[in-house]
Amino acid sequence: MSPGRIETDLIGPLLIPGNVLYGVHTARAAENFYVSGLQLKDFPELIQSMAMVKKAAALANMDLGLISRSKSMAISEACEDLIELQGIDQNFPVDMMQGGAGTSTNMNVNEVVANLALIKIGGVVGDYATLHPNDDVNLSQSTNDVYPTAIRLTILRACDALIASQVNIRDAFRVKAAQYDQVAKVGRTQLQDAVPMTIGQEFEAFAELMEEDIVHLQSASRLLMEVNLGGSAIGTSINVPPGFSGLACSHLNQISGFDLVPARNLVEATSDTGAFVTFSGALKRIAVKLSKICNDLRLLSSGPRTGFGEIRLPAVQAGSSIMPGKVNPVIPEMMNQIGFQVVGNDLTVTLAASAGQLQLNAMEPVIVLNILQSMRMLTRGIKILKQRCVEGIEVDVDRCKSFCDQSLVLATPLAALIGYSKASALSMRALGEKKPLRQVVEEEGILSRDQIVRIFGISDCPSTSPNNS
Amino acid sequence: MSPGRIETDLIGPLLIPGNVLYGVHTARAAENFYVSGLQLKDFPELIQSMAMVKKAAALANMDLGLISRSKSMAISEACEDLIELQGIDQNFPVDMMQGGAGTSTNMNVNEVVANLALIKIGGVVGDYATLHPNDDVNLSQSTNDVYPTAIRLTILRACDALIASQVNIRDAFRVKAAQYDQVAKVGRTQLQDAVPMTIGQEFEAFAELMEEDIVHLQSASRLLMEVNLGGSAIGTSINVPPGFSGLACSHLNQISGFDLVPARNLVEATSDTGAFVTFSGALKRIAVKLSKICNDLRLLSSGPRTGFGEIRLPAVQAGSSIMPGKVNPVIPEMMNQIGFQVVGNDLTVTLAASAGQLQLNAMEPVIVLNILQSMRMLTRGIKILKQRCVEGIEVDVDRCKSFCDQSLVLATPLAALIGYSKASALSMRALGEKKPLRQVVEEEGILSRDQIVRIFGISDCPSTSPNNS
Amino acid sequence: MSPGRIETDLIGPLLIPGNVLYGVHTARAAENFYVSGLQLKDFPELIQSMAMVKKAAALANMDLGLISRSKSMAISEACEDLIELQGIDQNFPVDMMQGGAGTSTNMNVNEVVANLALIKIGGVVGDYATLHPNDDVNLSQSTNDVYPTAIRLTILRACDALIASQVNIRDAFRVKAAQYDQVAKVGRTQLQDAVPMTIGQEFEAFAELMEEDIVHLQSASRLLMEVNLGGSAIGTSINVPPGFSGLACSHLNQISGFDLVPARNLVEATSDTGAFVTFSGALKRIAVKLSKICNDLRLLSSGPRTGFGEIRLPAVQAGSSIMPGKVNPVIPEMMNQIGFQVVGNDLTVTLAASAGQLQLNAMEPVIVLNILQSMRMLTRGIKILKQRCVEGIEVDVDRCKSFCDQSLVLATPLAALIGYSKASALSMRALGEKKPLRQVVEEEGILSRDQIVRIFGISDCPSTSPNNS
Amino acid sequence: MSPGRIETDLIGPLLIPGNVLYGVHTARAAENFYVSGLQLKDFPELIQSMAMVKKAAALANMDLGLISRSKSMAISEACEDLIELQGIDQNFPVDMMQGGAGTSTNMNVNEVVANLALIKIGGVVGDYATLHPNDDVNLSQSTNDVYPTAIRLTILRACDALIASQVNIRDAFRVKAAQYDQVAKVGRTQLQDAVPMTIGQEFEAFAELMEEDIVHLQSASRLLMEVNLGGSAIGTSINVPPGFSGLACSHLNQISGFDLVPARNLVEATSDTGAFVTFSGALKRIAVKLSKICNDLRLLSSGPRTGFGEIRLPAVQAGSSIMPGKVNPVIPEMMNQIGFQVVGNDLTVTLAASAGQLQLNAMEPVIVLNILQSMRMLTRGIKILKQRCVEGIEVDVDRCKSFCDQSLVLATPLAALIGYSKASALSMRALGEKKPLRQVVEEEGILSRDQIVRIFGISDCPSTSPNNS
Repeated sequence: MSPGRIETDLIGPLLIPGNVLYGVHTARAAENFYVSGLQLKDFPELIQSMAMVKKAAALANMDLGLISRSKSMAISEACEDLIELQGIDQNFPVDMMQGGAGTSTNMNVNEVVANLALIKIGGVVGDYATLHPNDDVNLSQSTNDVYPTAIRLTILRACDALIASQVNIRDAFRVKAAQYDQVAKVGRTQLQDAVPMTIGQEFEAFAELMEEDIVHLQSASRLLMEVNLGGSAIGTSINVPPGFSGLACSHLNQISGFDLVPARNLVEATSDTGAFVTFSGALKRIAVKLSKICNDLRLLSSGPRTGFGEIRLPAVQAGSSIMPGKVNPVIPEMMNQIGFQVVGNDLTVTLAASAGQLQLNAMEPVIVLNILQSMRMLTRGIKILKQRCVEGIEVDVDRCKSFCDQSLVLATPLAALIGYSKASALSMRALGEKKPLRQVVEEEGILSRDQIVRIFGISDCPSTSPNNS
Repeated sequence: MSPGRIETDLIGPLLIPGNVLYGVHTARAAENFYVSGLQLKDFPELIQSMAMVKKAAALANMDLGLISRSKSMAISEACEDLIELQGIDQNFPVDMMQGGAGTSTNMNVNEVVANLALIKIGGVVGDYATLHPNDDVNLSQSTNDVYPTAIRLTILRACDALIASQVNIRDAFRVKAAQYDQVAKVGRTQLQDAVPMTIGQEFEAFAELMEEDIVHLQSASRLLMEVNLGGSAIGTSINVPPGFSGLACSHLNQISGFDLVPARNLVEATSDTGAFVTFSGALKRIAVKLSKICNDLRLLSSGPRTGFGEIRLPAVQAGSSIMPGKVNPVIPEMMNQIGFQVVGNDLTVTLAASAGQLQLNAMEPVIVLNILQSMRMLTRGIKILKQRCVEGIEVDVDRCKSFCDQSLVLATPLAALIGYSKASALSMRALGEKKPLRQVVEEEGILSRDQIVRIFGISDCPSTSPNNS
Repeated sequence: MSPGRIETDLIGPLLIPGNVLYGVHTARAAENFYVSGLQLKDFPELIQSMAMVKKAAALANMDLGLISRSKSMAISEACEDLIELQGIDQNFPVDMMQGGAGTSTNMNVNEVVANLALIKIGGVVGDYATLHPNDDVNLSQSTNDVYPTAIRLTILRACDALIASQVNIRDAFRVKAAQYDQVAKVGRTQLQDAVPMTIGQEFEAFAELMEEDIVHLQSASRLLMEVNLGGSAIGTSINVPPGFSGLACSHLNQISGFDLVPARNLVEATSDTGAFVTFSGALKRIAVKLSKICNDLRLLSSGPRTGFGEIRLPAVQAGSSIMPGKVNPVIPEMMNQIGFQVVGNDLTVTLAASAGQLQLNAMEPVIVLNILQSMRMLTRGIKILKQRCVEGIEVDVDRCKSFCDQSLVLATPLAALIGYSKASALSMRALGEKKPLRQVVEEEGILSRDQIVRIFGISDCPSTSPNNS
Repeated sequence: MSPGRIETDLIGPLLIPGNVLYGVHTARAAENFYVSGLQLKDFPELIQSMAMVKKAAALANMDLGLISRSKSMAISEACEDLIELQGIDQNFPVDMMQGGAGTSTNMNVNEVVANLALIKIGGVVGDYATLHPNDDVNLSQSTNDVYPTAIRLTILRACDALIASQVNIRDAFRVKAAQYDQVAKVGRTQLQDAVPMTIGQEFEAFAELMEEDIVHLQSASRLLMEVNLGGSAIGTSINVPPGFSGLACSHLNQISGFDLVPARNLVEATSDTGAFVTFSGALKRIAVKLSKICNDLRLLSSGPRTGFGEIRLPAVQAGSSIMPGKVNPVIPEMMNQIGFQVVGNDLTVTLAASAGQLQLNAMEPVIVLNILQSMRMLTRGIKILKQRCVEGIEVDVDRCKSFCDQSLVLATPLAALIGYSKASALSMRALGEKKPLRQVVEEEGILSRDQIVRIFGISDCPSTSPNNS
């Protein structure tokens, strides 16, 4: 193994291990920020996006004649290596929870790209006089425009998988809804028996919740397409040649397949984190909806003998170390906890977004860490929820029917005939005397046989009202 | 004064004071929920919206032949009284922090409208056999569709004033930006001197922050235009005649001037609070942005003698009970605190939204309370911030100039000429020796006279780079 | 009515209405901070505490010979008027949501006390040359020590009522626990049937939750007993004579009945808000516990016919405007919403506490507003929950018994005899075949008659295991 | 390599790899909960604590004659292997973000301990007929008492390192305070110049903030010493023999060195998470205080030429990829972000704690994950903040002196002589005319020479007032 090399920064000289491609700035940062244990290498999707931006910049710099074709090509190829995730593990040791507004992430990428490029042109690792991390790889750029651009791109790229999971679970709910479309059940408000509905309507509502969130997430993600690439240190484009911003964006779009556009006001865009607040809020909304659904699934499957018991979730593991045969709703519980984490992470994002000062928000690293973790957990969690829970749900049709027969839910159509006050009294009497409502109505003799059948049907549980007017 | 009247509900009889128009359900609720001290009467905008919905329903019921023209007209006129805020103070005592999913709010409105209508047709207050709060005023409706519709409408109506305040402060920032467009200053990142910019750019960025939030709030508010009117208790439209939903919405739009539409899936819409989560998130984003701006204003005006001191905020009151002549940034501090409240309120909304169960979210009262309070404070606060702070800001042009002369911010364009490493060393030397960077550069003799003038200008502070490329 | 008087501050002259006792600083603040609609007068407990501090300071100043006995007595008597809540309504118009670190609250009190004192010594309102709000009433004080001291005192005083409500509801749960001590029921974990317990144990656990919170709140409140009175503007005691801090605290303790002590480090204590963070956290913990209890009450009372239905909450109002006879758990729902508000308010407190800068935290007004509102809602809400819900709870003993008979909860003691794996298989078989577990065990013939009776008792539901080991 | 073995649970048979010691329940869980990527093996401190509990239970079971001495010894030795962290990496694959209330963690430990013990007695891995994960290792236990006990123990054990880091940084601040005890500076409130103080006082206040948090954390940690070991599934001690709880706690204390005690009410203790809410709140308070300190350090070091510039933080890395020589406060920024994360994590803990239902809180896994991550980041972050920032802080004594000379901070002692109103006018005049206050006072001729010297000293910046009265 190589004995390593000495690199120097404004602090002084430092020995860099021979087997790594990063340099002095990365080494400093790896020491300074050993905090969360989550390193850049654990979020390869961010390294890929940074590499895409670096490649786009190298091409734009070549277009403008700022660097030679050979340097540009070497840098581009180095970036492609990273996009293909080569050598990630040993070369990106900087903690995600880093001070410095992402500078260390940018420096890490600059150094690795420079050394990879040096290798490609037959040079020596560390020979920055030939190809320099800052003067060449970072040319026409600043951390303050590159890093926000790359994290936007990373989030956009991660959106695809999340939305796919949402689409799949929406469809799984629709399948269930269709399967049990005709099963009448008691609808509940405030956990109290309310009026009739069908299992189909209940699951279709879950599908609709998911559908709305897909639309909402797509809408929130569009805000991320405005980037400040070309704004340089504070959005005034210092050290950035005319034309660079447009060219770099254009190359980046070709590389990434997205339609990024330069922000209208680069000064504002450099310090603004509003798009992250909104996007994280969209993740929070997904978490809130999923929590609601999982709470419902746990309620509806409560029992098996002393709860609601209208549905059965598939057993995926033994539920207890002491209670034999117990099966618990572990998958919805997992999703509930993901929901709590996403809401907590959203607060972290909000706090960090509030901490911008003057021409920059230095707290973007914790923002991107939390958004990426939330997305990862949601994407995986939704997939598991679909495969290991929703798809296997079975409805206890007999129990739903039996509940319909027992309940007082037909007091409401009754009120339409005899008035709220009278229906109220009959309902209370049925409850007190533990009789079916139909029986009490019949005993009172206030409705004709025809009216009774119209309300209560042949059995006590008529087909539900149509879902529209 | 009238001796009062007895009304009866499922609990039993209750004496209602003679001088009020509410009935037994309101009286029960006023006792049950004496908690926050904030009553319906303190949010007259909500009562107005409820009255608009009741009027629309009365007209739709008449269209469908469900109630007589005279009843419908009497109810309509009663609603108009409420829209004009007549008799609000004594008739709406129910606490905003109420259990029951808004039922008590709906009952309160039903009762007052019924009694007002009874008076209009020459009847007797409390003679519900003639005109009934539930059977007539609430006909074809449920709390669970009326209340969510009315709170959406209330928020939409309150949006106008909030957006007007945002537009005004945006414009105030633009005026300031234009006024000081040519004043060069030191841009700062991470509270450290960075690169040059102008006061104009700094204030224009504030304006842009506000502009983006206007657009974002408008977008979030559009989600509120989907209502579940006609869905009745759980969205299955039980007791709602065909055609009612469309007719009622149409009347409501004519009354309110908005373009509300029935939700696609009324079952889902009945329990869903996603639109509130998103809207509250938009308010939170506004709070985050305003906090950032106010933090900046407080930083930039810090001093008067030992801080940044680049701007002066207008004095609006004495700052201290003990320190004579002290003037504090009290208006931005007020806005910061509003921001903290709005973020806290948003969490309350999130928690409540997560607590929906099965066919309803019973926690909507605390949601609407928090959203309306946040909107009220933001609207008033932004107006004050504009009038009593932003409009009167003065820039200390001499100090800005002096800072430019002292700082090392031109190391960045220097690096473009001589490379990052060399520029870094010169900058450190200037700092260590407490010399101007220009002087160190001249002493080194590494640049031609022409190059020096190009970077440092005639003075040390050149015109800033153009804000684009 | 008096035509008013002119008062002047560093902004200029201002006409003060003739019928009020506040002065120019209050008038400025009332205009500057018209935001929340919640004014000082709406929190008379805070005005009282401020008056207590002012009286204590006046006595200490007299002790030290800094003001005459007659002035000190006049100020003291003026303070006593405020402690007795005289003239609060028209004299304290400043919004609680104020910038300026409480200066406006202090100024408002100084001015009203000064004018009340002037009246008492036969002077003229506004004649501050005779008795001055700052030079006399505020003598040896700064907002920055007076205000934090007064808000600590206010919270401490409000604690008594909150703790009383907690004690009462704890006792109400204990009464219920004793009443149903022998009623066996199915205990549930993860909403799934688990093992047997009694209603008594369930309600005793609620009582214990409350008990622990009482202890915890008392512990958190003790942190508030450290005050920075005498620290003046930044804790360096500038303009404060030696001995003042101890004397003033001593007088304040005599007036208030508390045992306040000067903080060890007055500089730290002036900007520190840690005690508020901790205290608000204790309120949040109470909210979390109450939410848990109310969720349980709503679950256990779900039904009446298709839910758990083990308990019945007292009906306190009609539950629905459309569904006759429906009774909802509105009181627990109210408490759940209070819980959401308290958690949101706690976040606001946290944000404000994080915003301290250098020698002061200017955001204390929003801290005290949120803590006092949370305490008010909790105190009232707990009282209502006890009176209108807990005390009237009835247990459906038959249903509890029937659930015990049906459930599989005795698989656990069975496993102790025959092993986890075998018991697991029997339990699954009973569930699949919809048979009682006892029957399956008997069919298998693996236990002696004696063993069966030992596990399943005479009926299927034996007395629960003793709550200890 | 061994070909693996088949294990069976209530779902069916499953092939377990030959090289691992976990069994079927672990394998199911590892598949079910692949979400966060953070596995049990990444939190070895939790595995250690589980092993301590298992060992204590094995010893107690032996004491009570429930298992043989040889089994108990084998289990104990297996636990010791885990306490020494042998074989952690391949045997604990379950995700920390798991449903099921910790059952999978308990099952994983039971299985690995059983197989390790089987090896120790010369048995075959997987031969559970000889030694069973549930019937032997889990004997007299349930996840619902073992898991909460182990996570309390884990947190308590992690406290030592956190407190050590707090003690060290407190001392580092004290060293700085002593070093600059005599350096006078301008104290600031609301970012405006206020009254004089010393650097020593400012840093001593930081030390005091830390000191109070140490005391507070210790107090909060004591709540964790109450455990529900012996309560079994729901606190009724089903399947737990008399005497077990006391014996097991006693063994556990001997093994762990802590003084755990059984909770007074085991039913309440089984579902209660109040101690976690409080403890997480204490972590949040630490985060709030550190954020305040780091904000102050960033403010005080702002510049180098256009900010406050009273202190210099040590340079630990280059600050910018484009601005040469820029040094940023990256360590405080890192700590600010840790603070945001801890506050977000605290919200997650609060949400999970609120989600307890009936006899259990199934959301404890996300609680422990968040508390452990917050503790880890705080412990590491504080250590770095001390070593790489606080210890190297230098004060710019000249600048502090110069600020004292320029500022108007002596208007306050002046007011004590000439009254608030007059001092106010002089202060405004000095500011407006850009003169030193002393000069304006001299020009006015209202004070004797002696008085002037008493207030302003020989220079304009006298020694500060003593920090007490």
